[in-house]
Amino acid sequence: MNKNAQITITSDFGLSDHYTAAMKGAILSINPAATITDISHLIPAQDIMEGAFTIASAYSFFPVSTVHVAVVDPGVGSDRRGIVIETERYLFVGPDNGIFSLALKNEKIVRTLDITNSELMLPEVSATFHGRDIFAPVAAHLTLGIDPATVGEPLDAPETLAIPSPTLSATTIEGIIIQTDRFGNLITNITGEEIKALGADERRVTVDIGRTVLRGIHLTYSSVGKGELIALIGSSGFMEIAANMASAKEALGSNTNDPIRLTVR
Amino acid sequence: MNKNAQITITSDFGLSDHYTAAMKGAILSINPAATITDISHLIPAQDIMEGAFTIASAYSFFPVSTVHVAVVDPGVGSDRRGIVIETERYLFVGPDNGIFSLALKNEKIVRTLDITNSELMLPEVSATFHGRDIFAPVAAHLTLGIDPATVGEPLDAPETLAIPSPTLSATTIEGIIIQTDRFGNLITNITGEEIKALGADERRVTVDIGRTVLRGIHLTYSSVGKGELIALIGSSGFMEIAANMASAKEALGSNTNDPIRLTVR
Amino acid sequence: MNKNAQITITSDFGLSDHYTAAMKGAILSINPAATITDISHLIPAQDIMEGAFTIASAYSFFPVSTVHVAVVDPGVGSDRRGIVIETERYLFVGPDNGIFSLALKNEKIVRTLDITNSELMLPEVSATFHGRDIFAPVAAHLTLGIDPATVGEPLDAPETLAIPSPTLSATTIEGIIIQTDRFGNLITNITGEEIKALGADERRVTVDIGRTVLRGIHLTYSSVGKGELIALIGSSGFMEIAANMASAKEALGSNTNDPIRLTVR
Repeated sequence: MNKNAQITITSDFGLSDHYTAAMKGAILSINPAATITDISHLIPAQDIMEGAFTIASAYSFFPVSTVHVAVVDPGVGSDRRGIVIETERYLFVGPDNGIFSLALKNEKIVRTLDITNSELMLPEVSATFHGRDIFAPVAAHLTLGIDPATVGEPLDAPETLAIPSPTLSATTIEGIIIQTDRFGNLITNITGEEIKALGADERRVTVDIGRTVLRGIHLTYSSVGKGELIALIGSSGFMEIAANMASAKEALGSNTNDPIRLTVR
Repeated sequence: MNKNAQITITSDFGLSDHYTAAMKGAILSINPAATITDISHLIPAQDIMEGAFTIASAYSFFPVSTVHVAVVDPGVGSDRRGIVIETERYLFVGPDNGIFSLALKNEKIVRTLDITNSELMLPEVSATFHGRDIFAPVAAHLTLGIDPATVGEPLDAPETLAIPSPTLSATTIEGIIIQTDRFGNLITNITGEEIKALGADERRVTVDIGRTVLRGIHLTYSSVGKGELIALIGSSGFMEIAANMASAKEALGSNTNDPIRLTVR
Repeated sequence: MNKNAQITITSDFGLSDHYTAAMKGAILSINPAATITDISHLIPAQDIMEGAFTIASAYSFFPVSTVHVAVVDPGVGSDRRGIVIETERYLFVGPDNGIFSLALKNEKIVRTLDITNSELMLPEVSATFHGRDIFAPVAAHLTLGIDPATVGEPLDAPETLAIPSPTLSATTIEGIIIQTDRFGNLITNITGEEIKALGADERRVTVDIGRTVLRGIHLTYSSVGKGELIALIGSSGFMEIAANMASAKEALGSNTNDPIRLTVR
């Protein structure tokens, strides 16, 4: 038995109900030595994009061979497929609704498989909780070393999400806020690499958000005074707007999907 | 040492305070190889019924021999007993206040024991936190393989909760909503088996909730259009009212304890 | 490999975002056999005092040698140091901002080390997330048995927080509320030992909070009628004001930092 079997779970189950625990029980009944780590269970209900962003921000810090399970699954019980995606480094298990799209941008897919082998599922499969009845047991079997091909027939490719990309010109990047975190940091879809590609001095860039203009891309929150706003490249590689020891979200009244523009002067 | 020692914890401690972590520390100090899984810590404060429902929905997915600990304990420090219940498959540890009643409906009790052996408790037992000082260490010792009889004298039977049962007639079942989940699904105390026992075609059943009448018991959320209401048998075996990709709770303005009636046409 | 490697994490990351999971992934990539326990991630954003109190209430229940990591870190990216504190029983890893002060009151410090060895960090260290890039990997390496001296140069002592102490006279103790928990219990900075040192009969003590006067220090919540207020010594050794099966915080309209006075009659 693989004692270092690693599984992560990301879902929109919230933290009050029994759903996540039932999944963990199903996993531990198959591989009691599995280490199960929660990524988040507070993905807004049925918000596949937010789930995709959260998984993409955390998955690559886990050991190679980790099985990442996601259950943000508005289509459960419909004809949407359940899939296993094997990449060169990881395994992903969940509904085929694009929730792994953002993570897969950095991964080399080896194969995608349609989960149909009922021997790898719980004996009774409900119509409304495939997380517990299908994805959890399949993930547990994968940590025991079964060949991913056992789960079902290969597919050409998983579904992908339409991810809003920033609009690039020679001197500007137009993006949006894609996430706000607990600290009120506003995370955009503009990457540090896209900014670098402009070839401009980072101090000579301006960032427009609402009626506010910020000068320069900084390194750390504490580069500015307490409460002041700052643009910086966050820990996931995206540009974010923060306020030193305060909430940029509150200060600016900004929210997800608001536009943001970066200009080279 | 048993490397596959499994413990679950269910409590009303919430997620901000140190209480749950102190329990886990007490467990790991006795059995550092224990795998501890949270069922929920967001049981409403002192709501034994909700705790009983949550445990009953998750416990049976865990491996045989798992020790299930519950700490929803309004009587802590009074003369309520602490107990260990050994069933044919599991061990349950907590206050003798009925919190395991719903789970025990599906279990064969082998024996019930009154926890009195102070050698199995922390050296100092506080008057207000038996979860940490008594239940956690007793659970940890049980995962190390001590005979349950060591904890104290046998009792006739654990306390039981008065669980609201539906009222059955030849053509109707009258029940109530016993839980609402994060998705706004309204979970009733009417089981799929009780509906089957009516012997009726599931498509010819009607469900009355408030001023709304729903036709038929369906299989999956997606059997109806987006936002539409639907009656179905949920993943725990109870009939629930859901709305496809929306909240039935909001749509109906319904809540726990509201009546619901199922009629065969 | 040490299979009983224990790590705890305390942070202000909340439960929605990916931050805590990224830290756990970083730990498990270095020591996949580590057992990681959350103390709390709902420390109010950047509230070092609350973090210090929460860690102090839970850390000592964990096995000797546990590595306690804390990330409440408003100074991240500034010149505040990252440190490892080795005591006779535990290791503490986090920012040098006083967050371990309250726990250290009960510990004998062996040495304090300035984390500078980049070989123990992630290959890329961001300016804004030292929890993931420095503290998590350093903690994981410590569970693998590296000599703490490897992390960097010794320091004289860690930073300490100014912790509000109660004012003691021969017949009174004046303190404040330092924390309120999920149950609405008001936890003060007055310890059971300070009350004992007054040498008075606990039944002849009065407690003034707002316009309310409570008589006697009781043993358990259930010493008084349902809903009634009570002063007692809580499970962490501090005096607290509770209401039997109700919220003292709501009943009194009291909150953190409100004064409280104990008088011997």
